[in-house]
Amino acid sequence: MIRTVPVAFARARDAVTPALRRYTYQLSPDIRDVVAYHLGFADAEGNPTTQDGGKAARPALALLSASAAGAPAETALPGAVAVELVHNFSLLHDDVIDHDGERRHRPTAWALFGVGQAIVAGDALLMLSQQILLDAGHPGGLEAASCLARATADMIAGQAEDLAFCSRVDVSVDEALGMSERKTGALLACAASIGAVLAGASRSVVAALTEFGRHLGVAYQAIDDVLGIWGSSEVTGKPAWNDLRERKKSLPVAAALGRGGPDAARLASILSGERIEQRLHVAAMLVEDLGGRVWTEGEADRRVAMARDALERSGIDAEVRGELDEVASFVVERRF
Amino acid sequence: MIRTVPVAFARARDAVTPALRRYTYQLSPDIRDVVAYHLGFADAEGNPTTQDGGKAARPALALLSASAAGAPAETALPGAVAVELVHNFSLLHDDVIDHDGERRHRPTAWALFGVGQAIVAGDALLMLSQQILLDAGHPGGLEAASCLARATADMIAGQAEDLAFCSRVDVSVDEALGMSERKTGALLACAASIGAVLAGASRSVVAALTEFGRHLGVAYQAIDDVLGIWGSSEVTGKPAWNDLRERKKSLPVAAALGRGGPDAARLASILSGERIEQRLHVAAMLVEDLGGRVWTEGEADRRVAMARDALERSGIDAEVRGELDEVASFVVERRF
Repeated sequence: MIRTVPVAFARARDAVTPALRRYTYQLSPDIRDVVAYHLGFADAEGNPTTQDGGKAARPALALLSASAAGAPAETALPGAVAVELVHNFSLLHDDVIDHDGERRHRPTAWALFGVGQAIVAGDALLMLSQQILLDAGHPGGLEAASCLARATADMIAGQAEDLAFCSRVDVSVDEALGMSERKTGALLACAASIGAVLAGASRSVVAALTEFGRHLGVAYQAIDDVLGIWGSSEVTGKPAWNDLRERKKSLPVAAALGRGGPDAARLASILSGERIEQRLHVAAMLVEDLGGRVWTEGEADRRVAMARDALERSGIDAEVRGELDEVASFVVERRF
Repeated sequence: MIRTVPVAFARARDAVTPALRRYTYQLSPDIRDVVAYHLGFADAEGNPTTQDGGKAARPALALLSASAAGAPAETALPGAVAVELVHNFSLLHDDVIDHDGERRHRPTAWALFGVGQAIVAGDALLMLSQQILLDAGHPGGLEAASCLARATADMIAGQAEDLAFCSRVDVSVDEALGMSERKTGALLACAASIGAVLAGASRSVVAALTEFGRHLGVAYQAIDDVLGIWGSSEVTGKPAWNDLRERKKSLPVAAALGRGGPDAARLASILSGERIEQRLHVAAMLVEDLGGRVWTEGEADRRVAMARDALERSGIDAEVRGELDEVASFVVERRF
């Protein structure tokens, strides 16, 4: 399927990349090398590259949220950079935690520089995200920093749940949805509102954008969960059935387990058993037969509808709403 | 040697512990278990304990710094809690990075709960430290959060250097001192001034306290470096010569290598060689013969003198200065 990448993404990438580069090159040399590699600014030897640095979905939302508040997009710039840094902090640590050796078809930072340097580089990005907002001299800096800190704390809590769920087979759909709201929804909610916060927008506009971002985040996670089981490795950069291999209780798995009956029991037994590798294809089939995939794709659509609904009730300018809408469509069209 | 623990430490522990417990129990359940264990509030099964939670040196400095600014010690409470959280974030991650299996004679958090949960718990404490300052509704909250973010970023940079130095044998004394200033000095500098920042003290008082804390931090690190080679394992909780085993370029090692000549060359060869385990006792002897230990102990004394000097020039009330002095003495008396 050919998808049109929203123009807001390219605009955000152009706006944010110079700032990201500048901050990266101000980091201490040992951290800088790891971060420059991870962000695609340099190869493993430190030579400059023009590697694809990701889609800049979060910065795009941040910039649009300033426009939604009637302010120039640049108002959101510190926020756009900060949310992108938090996102990359989480990628650096997640790759260590999940022991993933590849990201965007390159070795991950820990695989190249070692676990210690990857952990420390993630820590550095996390602190930098706060510093940028606190030192921006922006009247909304404290509120934006506080909003981002809360979102990041939620994301970290979601990550802890995700990990803890791997050793359980009684994770309910509500628990999996709550985890997705925290792990992915919280940072997207912050990204989609931080520009409005920096622009001093009204509470109702900030609340509508926050709700839009949170639902969009769950929709994004739902699609990601489908790809994590059935996505081709060319798209995901990971082997097939990878989330099942890691015993993740992603949305399709929780939905399938929640159906009960002998098939769900069989799935639970595979996911808690020792010889999981040989039974991955059976597990994937069971999740599908139990309706886990269809339910999750439906949930993505429902969440996008809820995200749109939050926008429509907000009184945000129609043109900006149209752009936010495009971002939402892009998220759910991300299939295979 | 019997040492008198400064009364400020016990006072700080009493003031900070209830807040630390309260915040810990507000964390999400999976993170809470790891943090409660790490802080000594619970055992491995989650049962309450009264395990020694460390000396509370940083909270003690934070509370004293409010007094130094003529404000009630309580003014510093959010800062005292925040610096203690950052300290514990660094312990959680350092234990993962250094692969240390024991701390305070108990298994480390990663050894018990897994690497992933320990990394995530550290991340959670880091964010919590910012949230406490940003959400305190304190007029100095933004400045305190900014000060702590800067100190934490410096500490993380120092940790990255510490790691990178392990694969080098040409680390100069200046580099090792710079690393110690960042890794340990920065957070102590922040701890020793954050109460004054929250109290809205004058720049000169904040600057004097910052300088006091930074020098004290280097003194503390110098003693720690001596213990890291020659300390008995009952005191350090680690096997003898541990810093040499990890090829750390701590202050005694950098000082010894900097002397040059055949003994320094021999030391460099051991520290970059493969069969290091069998030659640790020779390496320790070489560091001592090359004057690395004496120089480092001298540096600790010099730094404490510089710390005191910063205080004397500050015009801070004599009684508070006396208490800060006691903390400084305690730090350098920490031998074997």
